Parts: sequence; C-alpha cells; structure tokens
Amino acid sequence: MLIACLDLEGVLVPEIWIGVAERTGIESLRATTRDIPDYDVLMRQRLRILDEHGIKIDQFQAVIGQMGPLEGAREFLSWLKERYQVVILSDTFYEFAAPLMRQLGDPTLFCHNLEIEPDGRIAGYRLRMPDQKRASVRAFHDIAFKIIAAGDSYNDTTMLSEADRGILYRPPQNVIDEFPQFPVTTDYEQLRAAFLEAEAAILG
Amino acid sequence: MLIACLDLEGVLVPEIWIGVAERTGIESLRATTRDIPDYDVLMRQRLRILDEHGIKIDQFQAVIGQMGPLEGAREFLSWLKERYQVVILSDTFYEFAAPLMRQLGDPTLFCHNLEIEPDGRIAGYRLRMPDQKRASVRAFHDIAFKIIAAGDSYNDTTMLSEADRGILYRPPQNVIDEFPQFPVTTDYEQLRAAFLEAEAAILG
Repeated sequence: MLIACLDLEGVLVPEIWIGVAERTGIESLRATTRDIPDYDVLMRQRLRILDEHGIKIDQFQAVIGQMGPLEGAREFLSWLKERYQVVILSDTFYEFAAPLMRQLGDPTLFCHNLEIEPDGRIAGYRLRMPDQKRASVRAFHDIAFKIIAAGDSYNDTTMLSEADRGILYRPPQNVIDEFPQFPVTTDYEQLRAAFLEAEAAILG
Repeated sequence: MLIACLDLEGVLVPEIWIGVAERTGIESLRATTRDIPDYDVLMRQRLRILDEHGIKIDQFQAVIGQMGPLEGAREFLSWLKERYQVVILSDTFYEFAAPLMRQLGDPTLFCHNLEIEPDGRIAGYRLRMPDQKRASVRAFHDIAFKIIAAGDSYNDTTMLSEADRGILYRPPQNVIDEFPQFPVTTDYEQLRAAFLEAEAAILG
C-alpha cells in the first residue's frame, strides 16, 4: 500500500532547460527561477527565446531525446517499480518529457501541458493545477495509500512534507539547511537505502 | 491531461483464480462472486482451500507466473502508455499480481494486500478501501485530470461511470444489457479505437 513519488528532473533525467541550453548553445535558456523568481515571467521568456531562434516542438524534442536519462536511472527505476507503485510528479510538460519518458519505459507521470500550434510552434503552457505535487500526494492519501517521496529542489519540499516520508536527492545547500528533517542522499545506492528505511518506518 | 484507468484481470491478464484452478486441478477454486455473492465469504473459502492443499504464497505465485499476460496485452499496454498516463485499478492483491506485473514491465497498479505469515501461509486479506476503483477515479478528478476507463465486469461499472468516458472490454451479456451507455469492445484493436474516440470526445 505504498506509492513512491519521484521528481523527474535532477532525479531521473538531467535538468531539461540547462541541457537544451548546452546543446543549442543558447546561453539565455540557462535562466532558472533563481534568476527570475516569477515562474510565468521565466516561462514566457523561455518560449520567446525559442521563437526567436525558430525552434519548434519537433526540434526541441529531438534535442531533449539526445540528453537521455541520468546514468543508472533506468536500473534505479526498475528497482523502485518492483517494490512500490511509482508515480513521477514533475512541473515539466508532457511534450518536453516525452522523449525521455520513452527511454524510461513510459512510467506514470503527472505534469502539465504545452500549447502547441498546428505548425509546431510552442505558443504557451497550461499548468494543470497549482502545487500539483502536494495535491497529488494528498489525493493518494485520500485513497488510503502511504507515500514515500523523493526530490531535489525547493519546489519538491511541499510534496516531501505532505508525504509520510520525504527524501532529498542531491539538493542544493539552501534546501538542506532549510529542511533538516529530510535525509539527504547523493547517489542511487543511498536513495535505495533511504526508500527501504522509510518503508520500514512506515510499515513498522 | 488524460489518465487511462484499466482493469487488470480479463483485460491484460487471465482471470487469476480460474487460471489457478486449471493449473492446480482444484476445481473448487473456480467459484466466483456469481456463485458466492458475498466477497468476504468467497475469499475466506478460497484461502481455506489453499490451506487444505498446503499451497503457500511462493507456490501460488509460481502458478500465476506461468499464466502470463493475455496475447497482445504487452503491445496494447505499450501503445496506451505512449499516449496516456496509465494506472491499473484492480481488486486483486499485490502479492498475486506481482509475477504478471513483472511480465508487463511493472506498470502502476492500485489494488489490495494479502496477509502473509512468516512461513508463507496466506492468512487473510486487507482491502485498502471500499470501492477503490471509483474512489481512485475521483481522486484523479480532484487533481484536474480527465479519465478514460476500461473494464470487463460488473465491479468495473462504478469506475466506468465515474470516468469521463467508460469502455467495456469483453463483458458478459448481463453487463452489456444493464449498461448500454458504454461502448463494447472485443479485441485490442477495437479497444484502441475506443480510447482514441473517447480522447477526441473529451479534448473536443
């Protein structure tokens, strides 16, 4: 009766925008919410940059497909799926994640959608709902599951707090400092051990 | 923003108890809720029969593993996972389904747990919650998904009704008669077509 909720970028696959910036050479795509705290302003800037470079969804997906999952991610995910029901909770978009999800065997992913025009231009984005990571953990609680959640960044912490047990994976120092209640892991072996420890604590 | 909810037995894998009855030659394991309408009475009878024959969880799983998924189920599930987020909603038990789920690539499954004693004896069962199929569809609605659900039997009809679109797959005649609102499909090709039709209707 355990669901494992995992963040996607930084846990199973590289940070998508940074990877795209590296592969296209468009340095301005490196900006994150650390540079532009308002997510909507940041996303509109990103989509405008893509437009300026004439990058449509097909080319964008081709670049993302080249990135591939993180080393060891496939094996870690297989291990996790054998032991728990896995749902990946991410604030990315299905259209961006698709090439990477295929390489991971299309595990269940809850995220958001882009608005794609008939010619492939990325016109905008639609968040499915606010704070969907936390809301999804709540929804799983409502149907009598216990949840172990793992993520790497500030936007995962509401999900980790809502879960029965939360685990940090390769987090930045400010997240470690602000959330000392969550164990910190830095490779898949440690992450596996943290899941087993959380399971033992939940199931008693 | 679409989740595909699928029943398991009769849709992706054979009916587990019937398969076990055939492979063990224990005819009394064939009984279903059509014979014994009270599910708890039925399950206790089944577990008592296993006890009488000295069948523990390992042997039971070995028999189930031999059954394998239905022909074409793997390909159908791959197709479905590429297009939708898939969650399998079943009233079986994780410990029974495990050998078959492994052969399907461990897709996300919401079901129930058995109580297994240290020596492997199946002592009892724990339903995670009542009517979990319908409750799960409701929980997905709460987090802003649309749902297409497919199942084969009477206990799927609350899930099909709760979903935005419901599809019957190889249902018995009484279910067809009582629920004329759901399209009836009899092979994976028809089921695929029904999913695409439901998707078009939902997304407009």
